[in-house]
Amino acid sequence: LSPDQRAKGIIAYSGGNHAQGVAFVAREHGTSAVILMPRDAPRLKIANTRDFGAEVVLYDRDNDDRNAIGAQMAAERGLTLIKPYDDKQVIAGQGTVGLEIAEQAVELGVSKAAVLVPCSGGGLTTGVALALAAKAPDMVVHPVEPARFDDVTRSLVSGNREINSRRSGSICDTLLTPTAGEMLFPVLKKLCGRGYVVSDDDCLDAMAQAFFRLKLVAEPGGAAALAAALTQSDDITGDAIIVVISGGNVDSDMFQRALAKLG
Amino acid sequence: LSPDQRAKGIIAYSGGNHAQGVAFVAREHGTSAVILMPRDAPRLKIANTRDFGAEVVLYDRDNDDRNAIGAQMAAERGLTLIKPYDDKQVIAGQGTVGLEIAEQAVELGVSKAAVLVPCSGGGLTTGVALALAAKAPDMVVHPVEPARFDDVTRSLVSGNREINSRRSGSICDTLLTPTAGEMLFPVLKKLCGRGYVVSDDDCLDAMAQAFFRLKLVAEPGGAAALAAALTQSDDITGDAIIVVISGGNVDSDMFQRALAKLG
Repeated sequence: LSPDQRAKGIIAYSGGNHAQGVAFVAREHGTSAVILMPRDAPRLKIANTRDFGAEVVLYDRDNDDRNAIGAQMAAERGLTLIKPYDDKQVIAGQGTVGLEIAEQAVELGVSKAAVLVPCSGGGLTTGVALALAAKAPDMVVHPVEPARFDDVTRSLVSGNREINSRRSGSICDTLLTPTAGEMLFPVLKKLCGRGYVVSDDDCLDAMAQAFFRLKLVAEPGGAAALAAALTQSDDITGDAIIVVISGGNVDSDMFQRALAKLG
Repeated sequence: LSPDQRAKGIIAYSGGNHAQGVAFVAREHGTSAVILMPRDAPRLKIANTRDFGAEVVLYDRDNDDRNAIGAQMAAERGLTLIKPYDDKQVIAGQGTVGLEIAEQAVELGVSKAAVLVPCSGGGLTTGVALALAAKAPDMVVHPVEPARFDDVTRSLVSGNREINSRRSGSICDTLLTPTAGEMLFPVLKKLCGRGYVVSDDDCLDAMAQAFFRLKLVAEPGGAAALAAALTQSDDITGDAIIVVISGGNVDSDMFQRALAKLG
């Protein structure tokens, strides 16, 4: 950020952990942040983002145009827009997950593996794929999406950026971006294997298993890749399956729905 | 283990993660394991331990003598007893937590810190204290115990191994050992600072905060040190407070009690 940008502040869309990441970075850099977040985001995420000192502006996922609101606020206040996925620096940051995977896989003696990543706009998936292409080229990255929000899976089949027909209707609230980022899609297409699609119920089961076995708190979308590994391992090739669990912004009522699955 | 010991199998008392650790190690070494566990242990812990292939023998915390049962079974079947805390190798294993703390503290530029550790028989506390005495000598380790089961805190005041007056009555089911290990107590006394005592309610709050902020699943006793840090920071000296969260064997009903604290 230039001194001028820093003085005026930044604005970002909430995507996965992006909201809190941007809010945190803004605070560390002594600037202000506005975060646009869908009204149905977990209360916990809204509270956490505000705790980092950000101004949270809520919008209606079905009826508002996030891009229009963001562009207007950015123009009015001179804010710098940080996109959640179609941004090289954001993708580079998310690629550090891939670097960690490569490092840990070497320790475990794993080289050929399927790497499943929860996918929305495609930033995390592309970042991981780029890192692994460099560091662990025998791994294949697969995006995982919620049923009915499988635009990337379909896009990898058709070769074009497909668009979801709806904007809401899954508990995976961070995986509902209508289509993959324009800038990143060619990279994603070049580097990734086929996508996998999971149901909301699969994600709740995966959250319960993450609680039970891994002692980790995952939000529904954060557990999507784990859900694919647990339900579709017969369809996944590779010596090992590596799963990215990312995102723990889940309200206690949703978490209790997952725990109820343990019986 | 000698070939003869391996052929006959091992027996261990359940203490913290010790049950599953021993069951796992037994399986990896191709031998059998018997785990003595209090009847009120979390169902999840019993199930997990059995999943590792161990035979779980349940006893009554209030009325049975665990040591007598263990000694009898060991004698009858020729099993090798692995104690949960008063064993040099177990303490060395638990000391790896201290090595990790020292490593991470260096990365963060922290050298003077209070290190809070959930304490029952004292194995984890002693292991961490020994590792830090070698690697980060400006850190002071403090045991944390549940109210009414604060034998170690009282022992550090009196200089003698005090004994809890009851055997049950806290949700911190892994922190109820009646007194510190005989072998380790002199080490613990030499290296540790004062103890801290937390209520069951403090532990539930800490579990909720671990869920909310850290995305970690902790059992009540596993969250005891975090509970002390959250409720008694005014009484804790040092440039930083480092907390060990250890143990995530918690049934979903108990976890829901903690989540309910978030409101």
